[in-house]
Amino acid sequence: MNFASDNAGPVAPEIMAALAAANEGSAMAYGRDPWTERAVAAVREVFDAPEASVHLVANGTTANALSLAALAKPWDAIFCHMLAHVEMDECGAPEFFTGGAKLRRVAGPNAKIGAEVLRGAIGAVREGDQHSVQRGPVTITQITELGSAYTLDEIRDIAAVTHEHGLKLHMDGARIANAIAAAGCSPAEMTWKAGVDALSLGGTKNGCMGVEAVVVFDPALDWEITLRRKRGGHLWSKHRYLGAQMAAYLDDGLWLRLAGQANARMAQVFEGVAGIDGAKVEVPPAGNMLFVSLPRAAHARAFAGGAQYHLMEPDEGPDDAPILCRVVCDWSRSEEDVTRLLELWRG
Amino acid sequence: MNFASDNAGPVAPEIMAALAAANEGSAMAYGRDPWTERAVAAVREVFDAPEASVHLVANGTTANALSLAALAKPWDAIFCHMLAHVEMDECGAPEFFTGGAKLRRVAGPNAKIGAEVLRGAIGAVREGDQHSVQRGPVTITQITELGSAYTLDEIRDIAAVTHEHGLKLHMDGARIANAIAAAGCSPAEMTWKAGVDALSLGGTKNGCMGVEAVVVFDPALDWEITLRRKRGGHLWSKHRYLGAQMAAYLDDGLWLRLAGQANARMAQVFEGVAGIDGAKVEVPPAGNMLFVSLPRAAHARAFAGGAQYHLMEPDEGPDDAPILCRVVCDWSRSEEDVTRLLELWRG
Amino acid sequence: MNFASDNAGPVAPEIMAALAAANEGSAMAYGRDPWTERAVAAVREVFDAPEASVHLVANGTTANALSLAALAKPWDAIFCHMLAHVEMDECGAPEFFTGGAKLRRVAGPNAKIGAEVLRGAIGAVREGDQHSVQRGPVTITQITELGSAYTLDEIRDIAAVTHEHGLKLHMDGARIANAIAAAGCSPAEMTWKAGVDALSLGGTKNGCMGVEAVVVFDPALDWEITLRRKRGGHLWSKHRYLGAQMAAYLDDGLWLRLAGQANARMAQVFEGVAGIDGAKVEVPPAGNMLFVSLPRAAHARAFAGGAQYHLMEPDEGPDDAPILCRVVCDWSRSEEDVTRLLELWRG
Amino acid sequence: MNFASDNAGPVAPEIMAALAAANEGSAMAYGRDPWTERAVAAVREVFDAPEASVHLVANGTTANALSLAALAKPWDAIFCHMLAHVEMDECGAPEFFTGGAKLRRVAGPNAKIGAEVLRGAIGAVREGDQHSVQRGPVTITQITELGSAYTLDEIRDIAAVTHEHGLKLHMDGARIANAIAAAGCSPAEMTWKAGVDALSLGGTKNGCMGVEAVVVFDPALDWEITLRRKRGGHLWSKHRYLGAQMAAYLDDGLWLRLAGQANARMAQVFEGVAGIDGAKVEVPPAGNMLFVSLPRAAHARAFAGGAQYHLMEPDEGPDDAPILCRVVCDWSRSEEDVTRLLELWRG
Repeated sequence: MNFASDNAGPVAPEIMAALAAANEGSAMAYGRDPWTERAVAAVREVFDAPEASVHLVANGTTANALSLAALAKPWDAIFCHMLAHVEMDECGAPEFFTGGAKLRRVAGPNAKIGAEVLRGAIGAVREGDQHSVQRGPVTITQITELGSAYTLDEIRDIAAVTHEHGLKLHMDGARIANAIAAAGCSPAEMTWKAGVDALSLGGTKNGCMGVEAVVVFDPALDWEITLRRKRGGHLWSKHRYLGAQMAAYLDDGLWLRLAGQANARMAQVFEGVAGIDGAKVEVPPAGNMLFVSLPRAAHARAFAGGAQYHLMEPDEGPDDAPILCRVVCDWSRSEEDVTRLLELWRG
Repeated sequence: MNFASDNAGPVAPEIMAALAAANEGSAMAYGRDPWTERAVAAVREVFDAPEASVHLVANGTTANALSLAALAKPWDAIFCHMLAHVEMDECGAPEFFTGGAKLRRVAGPNAKIGAEVLRGAIGAVREGDQHSVQRGPVTITQITELGSAYTLDEIRDIAAVTHEHGLKLHMDGARIANAIAAAGCSPAEMTWKAGVDALSLGGTKNGCMGVEAVVVFDPALDWEITLRRKRGGHLWSKHRYLGAQMAAYLDDGLWLRLAGQANARMAQVFEGVAGIDGAKVEVPPAGNMLFVSLPRAAHARAFAGGAQYHLMEPDEGPDDAPILCRVVCDWSRSEEDVTRLLELWRG
Repeated sequence: MNFASDNAGPVAPEIMAALAAANEGSAMAYGRDPWTERAVAAVREVFDAPEASVHLVANGTTANALSLAALAKPWDAIFCHMLAHVEMDECGAPEFFTGGAKLRRVAGPNAKIGAEVLRGAIGAVREGDQHSVQRGPVTITQITELGSAYTLDEIRDIAAVTHEHGLKLHMDGARIANAIAAAGCSPAEMTWKAGVDALSLGGTKNGCMGVEAVVVFDPALDWEITLRRKRGGHLWSKHRYLGAQMAAYLDDGLWLRLAGQANARMAQVFEGVAGIDGAKVEVPPAGNMLFVSLPRAAHARAFAGGAQYHLMEPDEGPDDAPILCRVVCDWSRSEEDVTRLLELWRG
Repeated sequence: MNFASDNAGPVAPEIMAALAAANEGSAMAYGRDPWTERAVAAVREVFDAPEASVHLVANGTTANALSLAALAKPWDAIFCHMLAHVEMDECGAPEFFTGGAKLRRVAGPNAKIGAEVLRGAIGAVREGDQHSVQRGPVTITQITELGSAYTLDEIRDIAAVTHEHGLKLHMDGARIANAIAAAGCSPAEMTWKAGVDALSLGGTKNGCMGVEAVVVFDPALDWEITLRRKRGGHLWSKHRYLGAQMAAYLDDGLWLRLAGQANARMAQVFEGVAGIDGAKVEVPPAGNMLFVSLPRAAHARAFAGGAQYHLMEPDEGPDDAPILCRVVCDWSRSEEDVTRLLELWRG
């Protein structure tokens, strides 16, 4: 019963089938293959963005780093939440790919940036003063690192402040499928129609083997991203296997179905947690990730019973002391898994 | 009949089967999975290097860039052949990953560096003079960009000159399997026993979907490479699918069998070419790649008949004028493919 | 009456005389001249550090950037105060020279880092976790950006926490002369004897034309700094003019005399401010820089009377509203200048 | 009798006087001073380029690195002669400032690039192929590293080829004053009127203490250069001392008078060398630098007599064997110095 991460889950059968189907005969390398062509077309169609620049890469850190490198100058400040993946979990990839841009940490509840706090953070960077780094792109994560989500209005407000200052807005969409599935809006509504200029479109966490798309709605940056991708070692030679994954992922709504399954399992966890004495939900889950404080005894029973999830603090102290846990459901978790997890917690 | 590149071929069935087998249930992310553990153990065993630092990545440019970044300082000169992939075909990835090292082009027939020419090139860099870049690592490609191969003696001589100057030797082994299969030596004999300090171990061109290993025989660099890999966006989250490929690739000699098949097909091409009027082999093929000049009429027949390979010069001029072609066999080419290609050339 | 900055003052006559004296005949370029030799020897003698690596450069941003680049890896976090010059006023020079290191902002009153807060900041960086940047050097500014100074005990405590974690301590000593003159300790006591590993030794703000020294007490880094200096464009060709400045600056205690003059003028300002209705000293000046809130009417009189200093907030609001001012005395301010300034404020 | 380098000479009295004159009272820092304003105006007037972007820095490596960083992308090839200072003598500064651009070495007699050879070198870079670095700026040195000079026609031809390909032309003008003084043309004719887009305007080698100007004729790059300068540590705080040097240097033709003196001394050397048995001029001097092969006995007499100049090869072999020497006259060499040098050579 692995609730540790949506990177821990297997590849969805539809994706595996697509890889097998793509494995017939020869195909030109480096993206000049029909699967890649179909994948790019699918991204543009699904996002209703026929002009968008689309580049496939194998993981999310890369999609973020390439997006930010295309949007930021080496002397820019990049505005992100202090818990953002780009700030906390990428070993400085954004600094490396941008040539030394500075990430400015913005605070806010539930790992979300507020428009007014962002305005203050942007204003604090002394644009036009040669002694200071300059104002660069803003990046937000959807679903956030704490499992919450930005509403469409919140994204629009952030985009408004960003564009007011002539800056660009990037969205780390490693889990955007879960957000779209939950919001029931269109992909376009959550991105460019809300003011998002560049998107890291996640596939890996949601049933793919390893594929994400760098989607930049301004096609003018296309060639620069192409060169940055190659120079960064992210151009695949047998590119059809990236293309086949992404094409199948977006085909006939598979990506939203998989995300919906994961969200449904999390809803089951969330509901069940309500009935556990001493359990406290720290952040209401918008998609497939929950941060919950549990009595240590309950947690101990779950681990003893074979459950796996992340502990956000050392596992020590008295049995009734709370311990903060991160629980993630990927597309492959079953109702039985969740039922069993809840049983173990309940004791 | 695709003879354009060994990146054009499909994934070997054994590798596809390994990916399917690895797709059961959950596994910890980022390399803490049994498939990766097996892959690393397999690399160390196959190369008889129990201490070696081994990192899996998805393509060869990355393996080269990480290897060179670990061996070179930003102010170093890196010595390579003027036709080297790192110099000609990676869009400056070595410069990007090293932080601005300078590639020094060394000339030599058949894309091979000679030990004495290398000695001269190293000597020409003014070590100890603060106005000059300093002497850094040497990198050679096995099999070379022109399809030739270094003999073990040639590698030893290059390593001797390199180590004499206190420098490190890197081998771009995108096609090392073909070289080992052809030489019939052990992997250790062609690498660390001959003086190679770091190896880019290729898998992708030889039947894998996308996996290479950065193999550094000095384990002291292991942690730095780990951080450079993550920072470069090359740490896979669902890492088991890199591990499963490499483990299967090295299992029971599969990698050498696949390379042997490709070499055998090329031998058939080479033999057949001898019987073609006006055909001239420019570089005798050591493995699975041939550079041959053909009468344009012969070439025209082959393309008309559906053959694909790279032309190294514009396709123009009289019918009997020679045109330089690059022909590559991957593991999946069949005897029939080759027979048909030769027939078309013969006319 | 310029109290805006100690960069606004002229060059001390002794330094000008030294430049004139150095301007006789020819001398070897790039530091192979007797003036540079004397300067390096003087730094080592004054700091009682015969082995120290000493490199002369023309300004403080460079001295900081080279020091940090030598101490930090590209994937390191550098710990500094949130108001530190390296973070706020160098346009990302540390990021550029280190190849993308991340500056971690540490809070603390009066622009000073506390040892325990530092311990928490270091602890928050997940050393050994490949997803996180790693723990790198700590840098403190003496005199700080708010005009305060670290006591020797405070430096020792910070060094203890730094070294406990196996990290290095850098001191931005743009105004260290003022701190030493005020503390009456030896240069060694305020630096390596207190645990400082590398120092940016300032000269420019204290009577030189443009010279600072990168002083690293571990000579092992000497050659790397030499190369980074040249590569950064900071190796002077007519190097004797850097050497002559630094040699004269340290000769017979000139640097401490000049700093003492500046401190004495600031003491006069500080004393006088006490008698001004509504004036509030925000940070007690440890050396030659004061942050004081003045009634806007008083400030207005001073500007009208020709005084110059920095305003830390917009000059607006009612006459009796306070306005925060930064007042700096350099070596060249006279008693009369200060008397006049105080008269204007008093009205 | 120092003929080793024009970096070995003293500062011209007019420049020293200007520094002394600038040393009165206070002035705003970081370039907001009247001397800098005058210097910038002087550069624009002398080059008849009222719109040019002008930034002062302290040395030539910096001027070159900033110019190239502004003109090149990190993934560009920069075309330069194989003996160019940027390639051979700057420890990789161009690679560092550009973020890893690749210098492409172009051959040509007397350290000069020919237009047709340049066309071939540009053509060899596979523009539009994502696997290759792209075509970037061209840089030439005037006076070249071998003491020769480009004629105006040669510069125009190089500019034509450069612009034909949509690229920019940079001139390393460390010794451009000597070239202009020798050619008797206007500064504009040798630069933007001939197609030069960016110039490193040298002052240091020709009588200044340490000042060069980055002159970019397209003002659109001004702000980027401003930020790159600060970020590179090249913004002076007491900026008036850079401004005062450059203003005095260009005032009333001083720069050309100083260069003329140096050229005249070299003409005297050149003439005298003709009368020395076995002396062979390798490159006719266009300005103040000569490469001449001398019989070792003649050379030995000169060194024994106290002359200093650079040897381009080891000083060994029989007395009548030739040895290649580099002889440089700076503005301060006297007729007597040259007469004495020639006497020693003649013996």
